[in-house]
Amino acid sequence: MATSGGPEIEQLIQLMARLPGLGPRSARRAVLQLIKKKEALMVPLSAALDRAVDAVRVCEVCGNIDTRSPCGICADPRRAEGGLLIVVEDVSDLWALERAGVGMVKYHVLGGVLSPLDGVGPEDLSIDALVRRAPEFSEIVLAVNATVEGQTTAHYITDRLAGSGVKVTRLAHGVPVGGELDYLDEGTLSQALKARTAI
Amino acid sequence: MATSGGPEIEQLIQLMARLPGLGPRSARRAVLQLIKKKEALMVPLSAALDRAVDAVRVCEVCGNIDTRSPCGICADPRRAEGGLLIVVEDVSDLWALERAGVGMVKYHVLGGVLSPLDGVGPEDLSIDALVRRAPEFSEIVLAVNATVEGQTTAHYITDRLAGSGVKVTRLAHGVPVGGELDYLDEGTLSQALKARTAI
Ligand SMILES: [Zn+2]
Ligand SMILES: [Zn+2]
Repeated sequence: MATSGGPEIEQLIQLMARLPGLGPRSARRAVLQLIKKKEALMVPLSAALDRAVDAVRVCEVCGNIDTRSPCGICADPRRAEGGLLIVVEDVSDLWALERAGVGMVKYHVLGGVLSPLDGVGPEDLSIDALVRRAPEFSEIVLAVNATVEGQTTAHYITDRLAGSGVKVTRLAHGVPVGGELDYLDEGTLSQALKARTAI
Repeated sequence: MATSGGPEIEQLIQLMARLPGLGPRSARRAVLQLIKKKEALMVPLSAALDRAVDAVRVCEVCGNIDTRSPCGICADPRRAEGGLLIVVEDVSDLWALERAGVGMVKYHVLGGVLSPLDGVGPEDLSIDALVRRAPEFSEIVLAVNATVEGQTTAHYITDRLAGSGVKVTRLAHGVPVGGELDYLDEGTLSQALKARTAI
């Protein structure tokens, strides 16, 4: 039944339930918590969402999400070109590597992986842009997930970069097979980057 | 490190991480999902929160949360006085009973349970208001959680209502000992109400 609380509250619950990690039950708990802590939590969250809606940008250089484009990482003068370019599937992987403190590197967000069954081809990913950026760096590290699609994507990119003369590496094994970067602890990520191997 | 994404995004993650069921990691995933689905999810959620901040009220009669006071349940003419008044600890329990479709009852939200160790006494709960409402009903059902504090609170309320001549019952056993109403399936809740016993 489309229950207690009135349509405004019901709609809020339904929207919250669409967030990853929240089902209908936990969304109701979250909304009740918001309402109980109206001044301390609901009002600030509402304001933060308003600000984020206005401010959020996709970086035109690397695909990171930030409040400016080029993003803070691309604009950081300490991250000079000529160093490492780390290629990731998703912004969450970029954030995970940054939390791991992997150093003054730059990134390239593919926006997914090749997946013929899902109709995702090279033209759906940011691969042409990667090929254009590659010559500015000494090394391209393919930090894609250790899944079948991730490895297929890595091989495709390696082929595309073959003529560029740029060194292409991948993360060391240490990333669990089938695992997703975003769920790894920071030590494992750091070690996997240090022990990266030529492809 | 106070990472990628800019201060607006970082603040949004920190606020989301304070919701029950979301930690820092799932809050980051939720915020990324919001940003990726900006028009389909972030903008509507922002608008829904704005509306809820303005609209949400605590019902002055029963303590339910709604967009009006008296709430939709208290104002529902099909829920005549003279019937059952179900006493719950929290609004989430009221919502759980409504989802279970327990019928045309009314509710009273205590706002917690007696807990001397946490400094929660009778004056911190909506007990005086319950005693005032009780004579309008044929039966008071104490639907508190099957915890020590819940049962202590039920005994205290039973004593307070002893002189009123109103029948006081509790939910049938069937509620698992130590369990919380909000986590029960709807069939169990319905059965427990049907088999309620006199205290
Ligand atoms: Zn960038
Ligand atoms: Zn009410």
